[in-house]
Amino acid sequence: MDLPAVFGRYRGALEAEMKAVVGSSPLPLYQMLRYHLGWIDQEGKTVEGAGGKALRPTLCLLACESVGGDWRQALPAAAALELLHNFSLIHDDIQDRSALRRNRFTVWHLWGAPQAINAGDAMFALARLALLRAQDLPPAKALRAGRLLDETGLALCEGQYMDMGYESRLDIGVDAYFQMVSRKTAALIAASAEMGALLGCDDERSIGGLRLFGKELGHAFKVVDDLLGVWGQEEATGKSSTSDIAQKKKSFPVVYALESAPRRDKEELLALYGKESLGVEDMGRVVALLGKLGARQQGQKEAERYYRAALGELEAGELLPSSVAELRELATFVVQRDR
Amino acid sequence: MDLPAVFGRYRGALEAEMKAVVGSSPLPLYQMLRYHLGWIDQEGKTVEGAGGKALRPTLCLLACESVGGDWRQALPAAAALELLHNFSLIHDDIQDRSALRRNRFTVWHLWGAPQAINAGDAMFALARLALLRAQDLPPAKALRAGRLLDETGLALCEGQYMDMGYESRLDIGVDAYFQMVSRKTAALIAASAEMGALLGCDDERSIGGLRLFGKELGHAFKVVDDLLGVWGQEEATGKSSTSDIAQKKKSFPVVYALESAPRRDKEELLALYGKESLGVEDMGRVVALLGKLGARQQGQKEAERYYRAALGELEAGELLPSSVAELRELATFVVQRDR
Repeated sequence: MDLPAVFGRYRGALEAEMKAVVGSSPLPLYQMLRYHLGWIDQEGKTVEGAGGKALRPTLCLLACESVGGDWRQALPAAAALELLHNFSLIHDDIQDRSALRRNRFTVWHLWGAPQAINAGDAMFALARLALLRAQDLPPAKALRAGRLLDETGLALCEGQYMDMGYESRLDIGVDAYFQMVSRKTAALIAASAEMGALLGCDDERSIGGLRLFGKELGHAFKVVDDLLGVWGQEEATGKSSTSDIAQKKKSFPVVYALESAPRRDKEELLALYGKESLGVEDMGRVVALLGKLGARQQGQKEAERYYRAALGELEAGELLPSSVAELRELATFVVQRDR
Repeated sequence: MDLPAVFGRYRGALEAEMKAVVGSSPLPLYQMLRYHLGWIDQEGKTVEGAGGKALRPTLCLLACESVGGDWRQALPAAAALELLHNFSLIHDDIQDRSALRRNRFTVWHLWGAPQAINAGDAMFALARLALLRAQDLPPAKALRAGRLLDETGLALCEGQYMDMGYESRLDIGVDAYFQMVSRKTAALIAASAEMGALLGCDDERSIGGLRLFGKELGHAFKVVDDLLGVWGQEEATGKSSTSDIAQKKKSFPVVYALESAPRRDKEELLALYGKESLGVEDMGRVVALLGKLGARQQGQKEAERYYRAALGELEAGELLPSSVAELRELATFVVQRDR
């Protein structure tokens, strides 16, 4: 499925806002950030179209519109959310030792882990500073937006802690998985929708409804991400389709299979994941087992369930009908995307 | 020189404030933070006296008092500054591969680099959340304090970038060194004094004067730190006295020596630092050369110069005489300490 048109509406303004935040400092530290954000190649030459989908800022700006706000006023917050997301990606790539993201080498792969740690830290600091560019906001609202961003940043760390901790464990079930997802993935997507609504109106019902929309959608997003991590096309996703399995990530298909497999299949899976490291044949066997156990279909069912719950939240507040149609389209993209 | 008495005045309240921020979450992520902050050992048992000096929060609280403020109101900001400092320490230790800090194993050494990256990230997020506990502040002042914290966080990253980048270079002079120091070290010490003054008064002259006091003092602090890094006692400093040299840090004695050495000594130094890695004998030779070239005395002179400049700034604003005496005592400790 192609990116819905609403992504295009904000892209130029969003990128300009982010460029204003990351600035034009000649310090090579910022080159790493610009590279990661897809604006330059590793030699420093300008490139186009190498960035991410910008799902979170798009959701933020659309949520702002949906409550009757002017999306331009939410640009600083949208930039902040995208920078926060990218801070976590730079550090995730170091932690997972991933060499590729979006079909390009990762920051640590090019500049080494020590400087990549630092690049992520700078991106985190810039996320906060991005939000402070919203100077027309009443101070009390600016403080509330800041708290939302900070609490979300902490949730990302908690989720990442759990995700990494799960790698060495074999006792992770679907419940534990979703506890991790609510922090690592859903918190930021929920915050994106909440932030846009917060900057666009004062109606707590709409703000709360959009937060829940984002939260449910975030759960769907992660399950789909996990399915793409096993069955996605490498060229489309931009990363290796076996890296989740090699890393022993307790992604949805794996936790579902571990929890629901009949005894013999479960024993085989446990034996495979109990190995020091999985070879190519082992990984092929894992994929075959996951397929046989219906983990892909179950994942699609779970994603669909969260997608439906997300759409249900759109009926709670008083949102502009045209925006609701676009929010639905965005949600549909999240569950039907191939990357 | 012993820690001045003013450190003791705030210690209990500061630790209680920090503990309220780090919370009682059972998530093991927070155990790493509590360990790093010196509250528990690696098995989780409560320990005493394993924390740092708390120079930055002490300076913040004393600065608040010096402008006539109630230091208790600045506790959230003081905790935020100490957490920000400790975020940078956790990541520095990974980047420098330091196994020891304050005579204890570092977080990455115990839990591995991936989780230590995450622990530092959480500490960074908590620094922002700590500041938000100052709920009696007028929102506009809270926003200004937040901006100060965020800009300081970014300066730390810039300084760290430069410090790491300098390791592989031989052309770093005293000027380039101090450009790094102003970001990596002085920015946070300046922000600590400024923050305390900002929360204690509305007089821009006092706020600006204390910021400059902190800035000058921060430069003195770093030069003394670098001298202790070569000539300090390992037991007192809590880290290896050769690690700066092994790491090829362009610390003050080294940049001074590289810049001012006569040709033959300079060539020898360049040859030593040009090696892939320095052996024990090489490091002994470096220390001998630095000694012979008077780098230690020159460092003491520089530190003294910054110390005098710092004291000069205390005459600018209208500060309480009793606090000025304590600020002088704190500054004297910074240049005369052995750890």
